[in-house]
Amino acid sequence: MSPLNQDDKLRQLSSVTTTIGVALFLLLSFRNNAAFTRWQTGTDRFKNFCHLGKNLARVIAGNLSSYIAVGGREVAYDLVLERLNWIMVALEMGRQHLRDERNQQNLLDLLPPEEVEVLHADRDPVLYCMYKVLDMDRKYVVNKCNEWMRSCDTMYMEFCACINVYSTPIPFAYIAHLRTFLALWLACVPWVYVIYYQWYTIPLCLVIGYGIIGVEEAAAEVEQPFGRDFNVPGSVGAGLASMRFTS
Amino acid sequence: MSPLNQDDKLRQLSSVTTTIGVALFLLLSFRNNAAFTRWQTGTDRFKNFCHLGKNLARVIAGNLSSYIAVGGREVAYDLVLERLNWIMVALEMGRQHLRDERNQQNLLDLLPPEEVEVLHADRDPVLYCMYKVLDMDRKYVVNKCNEWMRSCDTMYMEFCACINVYSTPIPFAYIAHLRTFLALWLACVPWVYVIYYQWYTIPLCLVIGYGIIGVEEAAAEVEQPFGRDFNVPGSVGAGLASMRFTS
Amino acid sequence: MSPLNQDDKLRQLSSVTTTIGVALFLLLSFRNNAAFTRWQTGTDRFKNFCHLGKNLARVIAGNLSSYIAVGGREVAYDLVLERLNWIMVALEMGRQHLRDERNQQNLLDLLPPEEVEVLHADRDPVLYCMYKVLDMDRKYVVNKCNEWMRSCDTMYMEFCACINVYSTPIPFAYIAHLRTFLALWLACVPWVYVIYYQWYTIPLCLVIGYGIIGVEEAAAEVEQPFGRDFNVPGSVGAGLASMRFTS
Amino acid sequence: MSPLNQDDKLRQLSSVTTTIGVALFLLLSFRNNAAFTRWQTGTDRFKNFCHLGKNLARVIAGNLSSYIAVGGREVAYDLVLERLNWIMVALEMGRQHLRDERNQQNLLDLLPPEEVEVLHADRDPVLYCMYKVLDMDRKYVVNKCNEWMRSCDTMYMEFCACINVYSTPIPFAYIAHLRTFLALWLACVPWVYVIYYQWYTIPLCLVIGYGIIGVEEAAAEVEQPFGRDFNVPGSVGAGLASMRFTS
Amino acid sequence: MSPLNQDDKLRQLSSVTTTIGVALFLLLSFRNNAAFTRWQTGTDRFKNFCHLGKNLARVIAGNLSSYIAVGGREVAYDLVLERLNWIMVALEMGRQHLRDERNQQNLLDLLPPEEVEVLHADRDPVLYCMYKVLDMDRKYVVNKCNEWMRSCDTMYMEFCACINVYSTPIPFAYIAHLRTFLALWLACVPWVYVIYYQWYTIPLCLVIGYGIIGVEEAAAEVEQPFGRDFNVPGSVGAGLASMRFTS
Repeated sequence: MSPLNQDDKLRQLSSVTTTIGVALFLLLSFRNNAAFTRWQTGTDRFKNFCHLGKNLARVIAGNLSSYIAVGGREVAYDLVLERLNWIMVALEMGRQHLRDERNQQNLLDLLPPEEVEVLHADRDPVLYCMYKVLDMDRKYVVNKCNEWMRSCDTMYMEFCACINVYSTPIPFAYIAHLRTFLALWLACVPWVYVIYYQWYTIPLCLVIGYGIIGVEEAAAEVEQPFGRDFNVPGSVGAGLASMRFTS
Repeated sequence: MSPLNQDDKLRQLSSVTTTIGVALFLLLSFRNNAAFTRWQTGTDRFKNFCHLGKNLARVIAGNLSSYIAVGGREVAYDLVLERLNWIMVALEMGRQHLRDERNQQNLLDLLPPEEVEVLHADRDPVLYCMYKVLDMDRKYVVNKCNEWMRSCDTMYMEFCACINVYSTPIPFAYIAHLRTFLALWLACVPWVYVIYYQWYTIPLCLVIGYGIIGVEEAAAEVEQPFGRDFNVPGSVGAGLASMRFTS
Repeated sequence: MSPLNQDDKLRQLSSVTTTIGVALFLLLSFRNNAAFTRWQTGTDRFKNFCHLGKNLARVIAGNLSSYIAVGGREVAYDLVLERLNWIMVALEMGRQHLRDERNQQNLLDLLPPEEVEVLHADRDPVLYCMYKVLDMDRKYVVNKCNEWMRSCDTMYMEFCACINVYSTPIPFAYIAHLRTFLALWLACVPWVYVIYYQWYTIPLCLVIGYGIIGVEEAAAEVEQPFGRDFNVPGSVGAGLASMRFTS
Repeated sequence: MSPLNQDDKLRQLSSVTTTIGVALFLLLSFRNNAAFTRWQTGTDRFKNFCHLGKNLARVIAGNLSSYIAVGGREVAYDLVLERLNWIMVALEMGRQHLRDERNQQNLLDLLPPEEVEVLHADRDPVLYCMYKVLDMDRKYVVNKCNEWMRSCDTMYMEFCACINVYSTPIPFAYIAHLRTFLALWLACVPWVYVIYYQWYTIPLCLVIGYGIIGVEEAAAEVEQPFGRDFNVPGSVGAGLASMRFTS
Repeated sequence: MSPLNQDDKLRQLSSVTTTIGVALFLLLSFRNNAAFTRWQTGTDRFKNFCHLGKNLARVIAGNLSSYIAVGGREVAYDLVLERLNWIMVALEMGRQHLRDERNQQNLLDLLPPEEVEVLHADRDPVLYCMYKVLDMDRKYVVNKCNEWMRSCDTMYMEFCACINVYSTPIPFAYIAHLRTFLALWLACVPWVYVIYYQWYTIPLCLVIGYGIIGVEEAAAEVEQPFGRDFNVPGSVGAGLASMRFTS
């Protein structure tokens, strides 16, 4: 075989870089799609959880007149307000759980301190809230239509869908491979261009590196859809306001 | 290393351009798919919201005979017409909310002015309309079958799906990266062709730029499916006509 | 810069063609996927609409014995046959609406002429048929189980899904861009090959053009899933036969 | 223009081949995705059809005690066993319909010969079986809860989903185009390599051809998910065993 | 035709490698998407199975007060605890079935030995547990609302979805083809680089081979989502704790 000089070897590197680059872009595209799907699912499901909470509040408020007929105005109002309160606690607990934060104050506005402790001690506080929403004196239970129980089920399952997104990461094997290819590719790129551009290779590689790593970072950020940027408080606030109105 | 002349450097630029181009096309394809999915979802869900409204009107009109049996012909007709009216208000409010417009006149045709104000003051006017559709005197409530309540729930959830599309943009990180790559790529392209085509490069780059930016613009337009072009009024008009008929 | 001769310029065109080609293939692939999804959805939903009609006929026929108990054999048979008839009209009207045809004869076989006119005057004839299926004398209404009403809702919503496919085209911006790129690419291709193959370029370009335009045409045809080729009459015929049997 | 010798023309063919190759791979990828989706859907839906049959058998068996209360032990057992038998017939008929086979013996094990003939004469035998599962003497009908009727509906709709997969082929236009491109590409490939490898081109093209045609064949096989290889009998056998147990 | 020397032939091999490489990457991308979808589906469905179990436990515990009214405190508690026990057995059996393990001890903690044997003898133990959850003395049956039966159905169907993922592999034809192309491509790669890099080809090919085979292996691992790494025990443990609490 004919010996090659240094330059020809570097020139040939371009073909290796292309091969790695194709694998890298396929993985990157796969990663981004998976992360975006997570983000879409997480966001949609959490919003649905809030909307279902509001809708359930409407259904409960709509039953007010039948409660009045059974137990009097006073008792019925208390009953409905307690249900609405527990729905708000469920929304707040769901939000805090998914965002890994503990905002004691928001809960104390809604519940007495001993209840908050019971709630924090429970393994699945949202399910406990759902249980509390449905739990009431027997003579009112007959008025509880099936529709209501189904709404609770649906609402809890939407929360579970959020939990699934939260607790099922993208398989680590993919991310590990993606990063290996990314490192290899970024290591090859400068040698491909250095023979043509000499010192200009440095800014060129910075731009390319910034671009590619940026895409990877975007995927990493989008992967956890329940971050700090997510404006849940507004939704919950609107939910609260709307509930208070309907009652 | 061997020094290169100016032309060779430009020639080599073509490989940089290709690398950026591949990343650009992947991002563009990703963006377009996401935007198209939003458009498809938004359009389908909004149409379903209208269809469910019409279907709910059919169900309510189908209960007319049992209302007549309970409260007499006069009262029953009023009751049903009021429900249908609130469904129309829900459709109109949903449309105005999603299109960010305030057409006071359309609402005043359907409701007395004080009700319109209450509606505008509410945080979630569509939910308020749903509440009003179901809210009626106790002796009719017993006739309200579960089916009807479920239709209201489904209809509201379809509206919420529209709201989710409306309020969850495509993550900004992707769009920012896409535009960076687009700008870089468009900046590189002329230097690749100028050595071969001299002045003809200008029209050539205009055509290519128009094409690529056009695709990006198409995605940006499709991303918001509830725009002015969307012929909702026709749907709502048809809905109205159909409701009036059935009553 | 070094001047290039005519041939070198043409040779370089190949790189422009490749760039346009990549964009073209991405758009073509996107278009085909969207069209195929429409086709799949439209076909599945329409078939489900027919299947649900058959299933609803089964449910109604299964209630025959309770109708006989309420109103006698004669009346019950008439009642059930009238429901089945309206289901068949709904299927026929759905088919005609989606295929933009007006086959008066098929309808006159099922309904008296004045009913056909009322049906044609209605804005949403399928909803009207659904209304008619459920509309009956009050003493039978109590026997109408919820299940039946839900089947009507589901069936109507399947039809609405067809209507959504029918009335929501693929955004024009995409198709316009696709066709621009297609024209540009087809205009460039001959100049790339003419320097190598001279006269043989003509058949070569014909074959390539036939291939690419053919793919575009396949997408355009598949996009409207309710065409003439669609063997709905068979389905409806089978539906009819099956209904007659069950009654 | 400069005349080219024979070799240069062949060398240039490589670019034509690449263009055709890209179109071919896009179509092949599209075809494979569509075929795989069909396979996934068909398999899942058929398995769900079997699972729902088993579940329905459980529900029916769970109602045994209320039948005993209404009509005595003897009659109730007969009633339940007949329902289970019709479910098994539905599963068997569904399997035979989707696999285009007629195994008279399996049916005769379950039903008397005259019933088998009635079943074969029916246009939609699975629907007929569903009808038979629900059809029983009036005094038991009151015990038939809605849940049961919904299970029948769901089960039938799963079967219809299988029928949709079975009766909706991938549009022929795509397959025709795919095969045209495949033939063209395979016809070009040898001429590209023959100038470099002479006689070694023959095994090389055999390997490439085998690979590509193999992928196409895999898609064609996967497209019909209800083939002979599909181990349904096991599922049905397990279903039978499980049903017998529960009764 | 002009004879080529050895080096030119090897150089040309690069084009064959690229063709095989494109096919390989398409198949690899297809395979990874299919495997990832399986993983996502399997994980989501199994988690939903657990969540539905917990939710069902909540519903049953919520019925406690009506059972007390029918049969006294003692009996009602026993009844509810037995139901909860059977739900736990269903979760445990589902887990063991999907992970192909037999942990006798976990079951013996929940059930008496003779029941465990009956369970192991059954063909579909999860369905048997569901049957047991619903099976109770007649006077309590009237209190069993439809909602509860539907929850059992949904829970069982989620388990069936897991079973479908577990028992429907990715079609072997694809994996066979993928591995053929992988072997061919890996066999070609060294000859492409050896002329330029001589001995450095060995580490280069090791790195590339490790990368590509690693991606294939990641797909193979992700394909079976119910592996040992899957932290189900935690979920079940949490489920247990939560159930005990609510009772």
